[in-house]
This record gives sequence, structure tokens and C-alpha cells, in this order.
Amino acid sequence: MIFKDAIGIIAQFTAPLRRFSASSLAGVVILTVGLSAMTAYTVPALQSAADGWLSACLWCCLAYFAVESAVRARTAIRAGLAQSHFLSFSFFVDLIGVIAVPIALIGGVSGPNAWLFASFWVLKLAQNSPGFAQLGRVFALEAKALASVFALFLIVLFLSSAAMYVIERRVQPGAFSSLPEALWWAVVTLTTTGYGDKVPITELGHLLGGVVMIFGIVSFGLSTGILATGFAAETRRRNFIQTWDLVSKVPFFQSLEPSSITEITHMLRRLEVPERVAIIRRGKVGDCMYFIAAGEVQVDIKPTPVRLGAGAFFGELALLGDSVRSANVTTTMPSTLLILDLADFRTLTANHPDLKRAIDAEAQRRMSENQQMRERHRAAGAAPA
Amino acid sequence: MIFKDAIGIIAQFTAPLRRFSASSLAGVVILTVGLSAMTAYTVPALQSAADGWLSACLWCCLAYFAVESAVRARTAIRAGLAQSHFLSFSFFVDLIGVIAVPIALIGGVSGPNAWLFASFWVLKLAQNSPGFAQLGRVFALEAKALASVFALFLIVLFLSSAAMYVIERRVQPGAFSSLPEALWWAVVTLTTTGYGDKVPITELGHLLGGVVMIFGIVSFGLSTGILATGFAAETRRRNFIQTWDLVSKVPFFQSLEPSSITEITHMLRRLEVPERVAIIRRGKVGDCMYFIAAGEVQVDIKPTPVRLGAGAFFGELALLGDSVRSANVTTTMPSTLLILDLADFRTLTANHPDLKRAIDAEAQRRMSENQQMRERHRAAGAAPA
Amino acid sequence: MIFKDAIGIIAQFTAPLRRFSASSLAGVVILTVGLSAMTAYTVPALQSAADGWLSACLWCCLAYFAVESAVRARTAIRAGLAQSHFLSFSFFVDLIGVIAVPIALIGGVSGPNAWLFASFWVLKLAQNSPGFAQLGRVFALEAKALASVFALFLIVLFLSSAAMYVIERRVQPGAFSSLPEALWWAVVTLTTTGYGDKVPITELGHLLGGVVMIFGIVSFGLSTGILATGFAAETRRRNFIQTWDLVSKVPFFQSLEPSSITEITHMLRRLEVPERVAIIRRGKVGDCMYFIAAGEVQVDIKPTPVRLGAGAFFGELALLGDSVRSANVTTTMPSTLLILDLADFRTLTANHPDLKRAIDAEAQRRMSENQQMRERHRAAGAAPA
Amino acid sequence: MIFKDAIGIIAQFTAPLRRFSASSLAGVVILTVGLSAMTAYTVPALQSAADGWLSACLWCCLAYFAVESAVRARTAIRAGLAQSHFLSFSFFVDLIGVIAVPIALIGGVSGPNAWLFASFWVLKLAQNSPGFAQLGRVFALEAKALASVFALFLIVLFLSSAAMYVIERRVQPGAFSSLPEALWWAVVTLTTTGYGDKVPITELGHLLGGVVMIFGIVSFGLSTGILATGFAAETRRRNFIQTWDLVSKVPFFQSLEPSSITEITHMLRRLEVPERVAIIRRGKVGDCMYFIAAGEVQVDIKPTPVRLGAGAFFGELALLGDSVRSANVTTTMPSTLLILDLADFRTLTANHPDLKRAIDAEAQRRMSENQQMRERHRAAGAAPA
Repeated sequence: MIFKDAIGIIAQFTAPLRRFSASSLAGVVILTVGLSAMTAYTVPALQSAADGWLSACLWCCLAYFAVESAVRARTAIRAGLAQSHFLSFSFFVDLIGVIAVPIALIGGVSGPNAWLFASFWVLKLAQNSPGFAQLGRVFALEAKALASVFALFLIVLFLSSAAMYVIERRVQPGAFSSLPEALWWAVVTLTTTGYGDKVPITELGHLLGGVVMIFGIVSFGLSTGILATGFAAETRRRNFIQTWDLVSKVPFFQSLEPSSITEITHMLRRLEVPERVAIIRRGKVGDCMYFIAAGEVQVDIKPTPVRLGAGAFFGELALLGDSVRSANVTTTMPSTLLILDLADFRTLTANHPDLKRAIDAEAQRRMSENQQMRERHRAAGAAPA
Repeated sequence: MIFKDAIGIIAQFTAPLRRFSASSLAGVVILTVGLSAMTAYTVPALQSAADGWLSACLWCCLAYFAVESAVRARTAIRAGLAQSHFLSFSFFVDLIGVIAVPIALIGGVSGPNAWLFASFWVLKLAQNSPGFAQLGRVFALEAKALASVFALFLIVLFLSSAAMYVIERRVQPGAFSSLPEALWWAVVTLTTTGYGDKVPITELGHLLGGVVMIFGIVSFGLSTGILATGFAAETRRRNFIQTWDLVSKVPFFQSLEPSSITEITHMLRRLEVPERVAIIRRGKVGDCMYFIAAGEVQVDIKPTPVRLGAGAFFGELALLGDSVRSANVTTTMPSTLLILDLADFRTLTANHPDLKRAIDAEAQRRMSENQQMRERHRAAGAAPA
Repeated sequence: MIFKDAIGIIAQFTAPLRRFSASSLAGVVILTVGLSAMTAYTVPALQSAADGWLSACLWCCLAYFAVESAVRARTAIRAGLAQSHFLSFSFFVDLIGVIAVPIALIGGVSGPNAWLFASFWVLKLAQNSPGFAQLGRVFALEAKALASVFALFLIVLFLSSAAMYVIERRVQPGAFSSLPEALWWAVVTLTTTGYGDKVPITELGHLLGGVVMIFGIVSFGLSTGILATGFAAETRRRNFIQTWDLVSKVPFFQSLEPSSITEITHMLRRLEVPERVAIIRRGKVGDCMYFIAAGEVQVDIKPTPVRLGAGAFFGELALLGDSVRSANVTTTMPSTLLILDLADFRTLTANHPDLKRAIDAEAQRRMSENQQMRERHRAAGAAPA
Repeated sequence: MIFKDAIGIIAQFTAPLRRFSASSLAGVVILTVGLSAMTAYTVPALQSAADGWLSACLWCCLAYFAVESAVRARTAIRAGLAQSHFLSFSFFVDLIGVIAVPIALIGGVSGPNAWLFASFWVLKLAQNSPGFAQLGRVFALEAKALASVFALFLIVLFLSSAAMYVIERRVQPGAFSSLPEALWWAVVTLTTTGYGDKVPITELGHLLGGVVMIFGIVSFGLSTGILATGFAAETRRRNFIQTWDLVSKVPFFQSLEPSSITEITHMLRRLEVPERVAIIRRGKVGDCMYFIAAGEVQVDIKPTPVRLGAGAFFGELALLGDSVRSANVTTTMPSTLLILDLADFRTLTANHPDLKRAIDAEAQRRMSENQQMRERHRAAGAAPA
């Protein structure tokens, strides 16, 4: 099943990329084509193509981005958000993407060099991306700690390069001819990049180099530790806010008391699924149940498949004792699901017995409904779901 | 003791590898032999061997994998899971491992080149591995955050390589002759790999290079932070689900109230132990107790060793005041144990005094039982355990 | 908006740098100029400048640092903290920064070499930095665990270099001529720096090299894991202490019971904002409220903007149902804000309904006050805010 | 103060190293001398010294280790732990350290080569180290997850090296002459070591290389995430167990109810301090209080310094409102302190008002005692503390 899961994972993974621009997929394709053409334009072997269709291709991309920018600006103006839009990062990216190359060409820069400014198009990846706002918030939260690590980095950088310059300049007057050269060695070593273009060769240089490398690991570890701490806090927070909005769309949760709602919101995980993806497969072992926040799924039960819309839940039998899934469940449209794990369900129902009773009752109700529907079907003859 | 512990750790560590294929150990050996032979086949110095026994060895491995695949397919068909099996990643791995090389040979590819397709055999390491499903779930959960980091990576990659191309192409027309060359430099530097095949030599290039390396550390730190956050959540969840199944097999826990069971399930850690491994050693300081979820252990008490089966517990005296272990305890068959730490035991019993009373009582009961057994032994004369 | 947020983030990020010295911004500029001049002094191409204005520039920086040190010492003596100051790291940095270069010059060291001692000035980055104290505490807390990882590092280093020396010295008598040479290879490899100046070329050497690199990843992972664990604990602790002081300045929190205050202190996040920064923008989606611990903000409501001082709060409507911000809020002076997230607000009010009631009441009161003010304005005619 | 703190940190940091052998400091010195001498022995330039005093030095170290091993074995035998000792890692390290070199010399290995076996002495760093047991437990706990990452590593390694071999062997028949050569490239790249001895030069090779490097970051991130998760759990657990033992030695905690004891044990941090180290400095801002689990401190209050022994506490005024320390406190012997932070104290007393009352009362009692002592001093005349 991993094979199919992989498709789901890739779909999930590329979701934020696919929606990075107003016109979604088209935008990604144009961006990829534009950046590739710009890259190819600089290759000497493709010089004949560069003057022909590569150039045409680049002008088309530029035209597309110009139209897209205009549409975005008009939409903002109509919504009365003109000032906010023209001061935004999004507008800055639109503007630089459209005007940089023409200005360079007008200013007399030769073709291949002017089109290098098209590399600013890559900034469109950051446009309208909620993930970037999240990364930004992590940096803002951990700014002081990161600044301390950076100061430590600079201290080690300067002291070690001054020492290495003194140690190595006699035996390697070429490689360590000045302090800037030694600083380059230190930054290459401290980030553990290690090009090998400047390498200490004396015993003392080796000793100092080893110490600098270990400091490199430490500064790596510190910055990672800081970012991991910040990320864990930010993820927890962001998750709650997004889930909270969805929880309000599931009527079932509204009957619970406030403290249970808060607790369950912390536990639920969001899953955005494209249409025609199998959520549950018959015969597999299940360990979670699903609430539908938006969209629709089809449960393939006999005699007629049943469709469940926003607000419904399914897969609850896995949590009530039956670990093997009894029917396939597939999305019929792009849906947003909320997942409740067995682990969290157990913890929750231990503290809130009312929750378990509510799910039991709802499951019972839906089962008898299915029963009635099935009987009606039998009376009326089979009808398509 | 670290020496013996190390053996236990290695046993534990290799456990998932050993069971990666239906036929366990044989599969690992065949896979190792197959991949080694395939690797050796490409070495010019071994060309004479390649046509002889190396070739034979590879055909044997291929035959083994073909038989294994057939067995796996037949088992799935008999269990009525044919459709699910033929769409699975497992079947895909089986298929490509068996048909890739023959198809290449039939298609006219020369021997050494055709056998390169045998490198797909390494995918069998991912077959039926629960750990891979866990890694996959972490990626799925953190897909959006990782996509943002990747987008940041791409932005830095493109902008820095365009800038470096402009800066360095005049002084190093060979190394930075086109944007693709500069992109290669940027990816080597941003991942802190640092081959050193392309290195900036101008002052401005050094400055930009330093900034790219520091961005490399940051993107390292961000992706690690994201994966660590995701992994912590996934581990906690997975641990609960697996432990929950085992807890249901220990009658002792069934007498507790639901909230205590949930709490204790979060605290217990699973340990899978091969047979004849010493769990407890007399004279060592102990800080945890063990519940037997499956398997059997032997407690070396005088006069007769006692065997404890699934559902029993041992080592509880360490938590009740006696910190020095009083007897050796060794597994007599592959066993699954649940470990309860002193730290968790204290936390648990502070909130649930009934639990401590239950363990006290059970320990008392077992002690008096041992006493009776010992007396019976004394009456009947010593008998082997 | 990311564009403006970025400015806020940069402002936040550079805040600890800007205040690293008693005389703030001037100190940073002098330090940057001094270190740059010292670096340029060693470049042969700038030798003519070195004897002229570069030298003058360095003497000016030295004079500035001497005056700064004297001022700092006098301040400490007047405050009766003379002994504590003269034993402190800060005094040590001041002292070495002022006397190192003159002593070298007097001792007969040539100019370019003597000025290398000015690299000690970089230590001023660590002076009076609370972030460094935090890093230091993380190291102190995790000292034992880090020492174990370092011991593991040394063990792998020695055993692998001894083995590599034996393996490679025959085929590469130049590169692996002695154990110190092999140790250099091992440290370069184990830290994954990989200069490439010494590379194993035998099959066995490749195998051992691969194992050492994987150990490198593991020691990286272990040290990062340790530092991340320590950092998370230290951050949580430090955050509480700093926030606790601020919470006592917000009268609103004083009415709560002690357990609510402790809980809310754990949840609040501090944000230091320079003046004239927009905190809230009309029309954006909001998910947090702000308490003013120090400073002042201006709320742009019609007809007259209102100013809120220390102790007030704003943005609470986002938590009470209205997710779109209804007015711009901008700081009028450097301010310290406490942020309460939607996620934490929900958790808090679920357990403490009194808190929600208090915020509701306060919001009501402020609204009716605004109403009255507006009516008074209407009666008196529009007046500038 | 950072300067003095640094000494404390270094003292703390080196503590586990200093006690790694039965005879403490002497052991570390001998080990350092031994390993240095062994390393120097292989340097051709020191060949004359090698036959003289270096050789003598090595024989002395070997003699020391032989005596140490004998003492350790005799101690174990006398304690009735002979069997356990002779099967332990510690004995294995002792044995190999003593017999490896003599056996090699007897077996006819030349001097410099035989003494290479002395590199096993570095294993003594792992002997009797509790930190290593902790690292081992983290690996055991996370074995399955790490095995999955390692399997993923192997899969990427094999598939990418097979692909790179096909791509590059035509243009670089020297560097990628066989699959083992390509495997070496892959392992150097996947660990981001990047020697640069084998570098792809084709466009396709660059693309594949970039993908492998990004996989390298991911496998780095995964293993770090796993180890960080495991380490956090293990640290929390180990901390509790060690602190629990110490808590039982502080009579003050015994009066609390069990749930408070458990909670406080989770919050306390251990600090081992050598003698004559200042714990508290007058005039500094304090944010924690200290309990003495073992050892003694001297409080420099007027007229006579007071000594506090095991079971006492100090620094509590910082938590009761007074943030500035009023007296110096210094250890008079190596001591073990338990630190309770302001953050944890607030959380604790919010839930357990009895705790705050107890500390208040105890502080009052000690203050009046001091008062009485001072009065008695005044009556009897000043006496040295």
C-alpha cells in the first residue's frame, strides 16, 4: 500500500506548490519554463537557440507575469485594498519580475545579461505562501537566541582566522597571504563546507582547524536546536488556529463542553485530500477516525454506496474495537478531513466519557439509518447512489 | 556490563533488518550476496570471475527472488487480497527485481550493464517495513512546512548562482562559464557538501559564498527542526497504538480504571528481546519494572528457578524501595516486555494510589506463592525447574 | 505584508546587536570599522593605505574603546561594584582590547602583526549579552551528555585514524606518513568537512571512510539532539522569568487568581517593537490579542485616534469572534507587548471562564468610553488626536 | 560574571572526564601522555626520540594501566562480583589495553607498528561512564527508527551510485571506472562530506548529484530528529531517577504530600559544584533557590558567616519577592545542589499553596535563628566562623 500512500504523500507535498500563484498550475509551469529558458540562455553551446525560440519563450513568460500582476493589482484595487497591496511583498515581487529585464535592456545591457534579472521570478515561490509566514514567525520568535549564536560564530571566525593567518602564512604565503584569505578559510571550515582550496598544513594549523570544525558542529547544533524549539511551538500554535476554524464546521463537536472542544482541537490533525483518493481500504488495520470538515466521501457499503458530506464522520469502528476496516472510503471531491488517532481518542475518552457515548450513539444512529435506507432500497429496487 | 548491553542493543537494532523479508535471515544473506556480486561484476580487475562464478551467483539470487515473489503473490491470492497485492509497492519491488535484468538482457544490453538493474534489489529493504510507513507519515504531516523550506532553498539557489555567475565569470571563465555551472556551485555549497571543484576567488565572491553557506546551515536547521517536531509527534502516537495492544494482554492492567490505563500506556516502553538474553542481573542497580506481554522469562531464585509467562511482571522491588536486583532474569524465548520506569511509576502512583496497592498486593501474593513452592520442593526433594 | 513584516523581523533580529555596548549604535559602527580596517591592514595591495589612513582609523577605534572602558570602570566603581567589575569577563574584554596592541608595538612587533591583536575586539559582541548567558547555561546543563558525545568522538577519531594509517600508508606514503596526518584526515572526515587534501584510495580505506562519515552524522545528530533538548528547557524557563516581570505591570492580570496568572505567564510571548511600527493592519485576519507591558500605541479609529498606554490591551475582538482587524494599531514609542494567541486563549478560557468574562467586560467598558469620547468630540467639534 | 561562570561551566563540563578512571586525574594525565607518545612515535622526524624516551614513556603508561587493571580486578573479586567483572566491557578494555602491544611485539611486529595497538587505550574514556550508558539507551530505544533511516540511506546510496556510474563512466573513465568507485562518490556526497576527489561533470550528473545532496540533508535531519526525540525522553527519565535519590536526603521535602514530591522532582535540576565555588554573589539578580543534597556552603552574612549543611536551603528570598541577592554563598566542599527555578516555583505554589507556606515558615525560622545567633555573638564577642 506504500506505493499508493506515496502518491497521496506527493499530492499532499506538492499542494502548496500547486497553489502558489493565483492561476495555480499554469503559474508553476510558466515559472519552470521561464527559469529553465533563462538558465539555458547563458549556455554558450545554445547560443544559436538563444537568439531564436529561447528568447521568444522568455518574452512570453514575461508577458504572462505582466498580465498576472495587472489582474492581481486590479483585484486588490476593486476590493479597496489598494494601499495595502502596493506596499506588500507580493506587489514588489510582481513589479521586479515585470520591469527588471526591460529596464536592463533599455539601459543598454546586452541580452544574455539582461535576462539574468529574470532570476527574480523565483521569488514568486514565496508569494502568497502561508508556510513562509510561519518560517518568518519562527525567526522573529527566536531572533535573540539566533543573534547570540551568530555572534559566537563571528567571534570564532575572527579569532581563528587571525590565529591561522599567523600560523600558516610562512609555509603557505600563497593561500594565507592576508587576513581576508584566512577569513574565507574560516567560514568554509566553520560551516563544515570544506572546499579544500585552502588547507592548513602545519601541525599547529591542524590542531586549530580541528577545534574550528568542532565549533562548526556546535554552532550547527545550537542553531538547529533553536529553530527546532521555535518550530515546535509555532506548529502547535498554527495547527490549533487552523483546526479551530474547521472544528466549528462539524456539528458533532458543538454539543461538547468548551474544555473538551479545546482539548480535541489540539489533538485533531488536518488532511487535505484531492478527489478520488482512497482514505480507507477494506481489510487494512485502522487506528484513527475521520471527521469531514469540507468536501464529500463515498463509503462503498452494500447494496448501495453511501455519501457522507461535511460534518459527518467515518472510520469510528476502528476506535470502538474493530481494528480491520470493513469498507472502502473514497473522496468524491477535494476534501478537508480531521483525523483523530486511537492514542488521542483513548486519552480523550478516559477524561470525557460523554465523548465516547456521543460517538457510540452517533454510530448507532447512522447504522440504523443505513438499515432503513437499505430496506427502502429493497422495497423500491436498487437505485444508483 | 556495557559489553553485554551492546549485544542486546545490536540485537534490537538489527531486528527490523532481520525480519525485512518473509524468509527473514535467508533473505538478508541473499540480498547482501546479490548486491555484492552485482557491485563486483563492474570491477575490471574481476572480469574473469565475472563471466564465471559471479554470474552464476547473480542468477541464483535472481532465482531466489523469483520464487519468493511467487510465494508472496500466491499467499495474497489465497487470502483474497489479490487486487490489493498487485497494486502494492511490495509487488512492484518484487516485479522489478525479477524482470528488470532479463528484459535488459533480452533487449540486447551487454551483461555487466544489464546486471546494473539488479541494484533495484536494494528496494527490498523498504518492503514490509513498518519504519518506512512511519517515515512516510512524518513527511506527509510536515509536507507543507518542508515545501516552504524547499522553496526558500530554491530561491537562495537561483539568486545566489545568478549573482555568482556575474561576479566570477570574468576571472574564472572556465569554472563559471554558464548559469548551470553556477547552479552546480550553489547546490554544492548550500548543502555544505563543498567538493571544491568550483570555488569563488574574488573578494565579492567570497562574501556571497559565506552568506550562501550560512543559509545552508539555516536550511539544514529548519528541515531538521521540522522533521524532529514531526518525528516526536509520530513516535508518541505510534508508541501508544502498539503499546495499547500489548497492555490488553496483561491481565494486571485490566483491573485499573480507564484513565489509569491510558496514562500507563503513554508511559510504558516496548522492548523486544531475543531468547537467552539477560534482562536483569543480580547486584546491579535497578530503576524499572517489567511486564511480560508475550514470551517467557526465567527468574534464577533459590532453590528452583521460576518461569514467568505472558501477563506476569518482575523487577517491581526496584520501585518499591529495593534498588539492588536480587536475582538474574533471562528470557527463555523471544519475548516482548513492557518497561515501566521509576520516574513514571512515581508520577503514576502519586495520582493513582490504587495502582501502587495493586502492585504491592500482587508482589506479596507471588512471594507467598514462591514460599509455598519452596516448601513443597523441600518436602518433595529438589526437582529441576 | 511579508515585506513590512520582514522589516519588523530584521528590527527584532538586530535589536540585541544594537544594544551590545553601552553606547549602542556608535559601538557597533566603531567595531565594524575597526575590524574591517584591521582586516584590510593585512592585504598587501593596500600597503600604501595601511601606513596612512588605515592606521589612523585603527588608532581612533582604539582610543574610543579606551574611553568606553574607562567610563564603564568608573560607573562600576561609583556603584560600589568595583571588585565584581574587575573580575568580570566584560572588564577582561575591555582590558585586552585596549592594551594588547600597544604592548605588542612596544615589544617590537611590526605594525601589521601588532594590529592583528585588534581581532580581540570581536569579543565585544559577547559583552553584556543576555543571549550568551543563556547559551552558557545550556552548555552547563548538558555538560555531561556533551562530554559523553565528545568522548565517543575521540574514540572513533583515534581508532579510525590508527586503522586508516595502517591501511593507506603503503599506497599513499605522502598523505598518510604518520598518525598525526591520519588524525587530521579523521577529524576532517568525522566533522563532515571533507577538504579532500587526504583521501583514502584503497577499497578497505573507502569502507572505513564510509563508516567514519556515518559516525560523523551520528555525532552531529547526538550533539544537536542534546543542545535542542537543553535549549527547549532553557527557553521555556527564561521566557517565564522575563514574562513574569512584565505581567506584574499589567493591572488586568492582577485580578486573576494565582494559578491563572502562572498559566497565562507560560502562554504569553514578549515582543519588543521599535516606534512607528504597525502592529495590527485593518482588513488582515487576526489570531491574537496584545497587552502593553511598556510603551504606547495609537489605534486609528474614527473620528479621533485613541492612544493606549502601559497596562492596556487591544486586538481582543479577534479572540471574541471577529477575525478581521477593524483598525490600524501603530506604536508611538519603543514598546514591549505581550501576545496571547487564539490557541492559548481558547485553552485558558476553557479552564478559567472568569478570564473570558473579564476581557469581555473590559472590551465593553473601553467601547462605551470610546462612544462617550466620540460624543464629546461631536459636541466640541473635531480636534486633532 | 560570565568569566567566572565560564570556570564553573568548565569545571562542570570536565567533571565526567576527571572521574573516568578509578584513580581520577592521574588516569587522565597518563592516558593523554600515552596517546600523545603513541602518536608521536609514528612521526618520521621524531624517529631518534622514538627509540629513546618516547618508548620509555609508553612502557610506563602500559605498566600503569596493568597495575590499574589488576587493582580493579582484585576489587571486583573481593566484592564477589568476579564473574560479572570478567564478562564486562570494562574488563575487556583493561585487557586489550594491557596485552595488545606485548602480544604484537612477541608476534614479531616491529616497534612503531606494535605500539599502534596502544590506540585501544582511548576506549578507557568509555569505561565506567554513565553518559555512555545513556547514549546506548537512546540508541536501543530508537533502534527501529534509525534502522529505517539507515535502510533509506542504503537505498539512495545504491540506486544513485548505479545511475551515476552509467552517467559518468564515459566522460570520466578514471573516476567512475566501476560501481565500487561510484559507491564511494555516493557515500561521500550523501553524508555531505564532499572530498571532491570524484565529482560529476555532465549536466545529468550534476542534476543527480544535487538530488543526492538534498537526500543527504534529509537523512541528516531524520537521524537528528530521531536522536533528539530519544534524547529528550531519556534525559527527562534519567534526571528524575537521579534527583529522586537526592530529594530523599532533603528533610524539607519529606513533609510534602506524594504528588507534590513527584512534581517537584521533575522540576529540580542537579548541580555538582567543586569546593570554593561561589554559588550566589551579592548584588546579582537571582531567579532560583538552592537545596543542599550533599556537601556544605558558607553564607557570608554579618557578623559571622553561617554554614549550611546537607538538607538546608538558601536563596529562597529571590522567589519570595527580593530579586537582588543579599549575601555571597560559597561551597566549602564538593557539594550537590538542587536548583528550583522561579518559573517552576510559581507553577508549583499556584497548585500547592502548602509548599509556599512551608518555605515561608522555614525562611522565617532560619532568620530568627540567625538573629538569636547574632545576639549571642554580640553577648560573647565576635568569634571566627
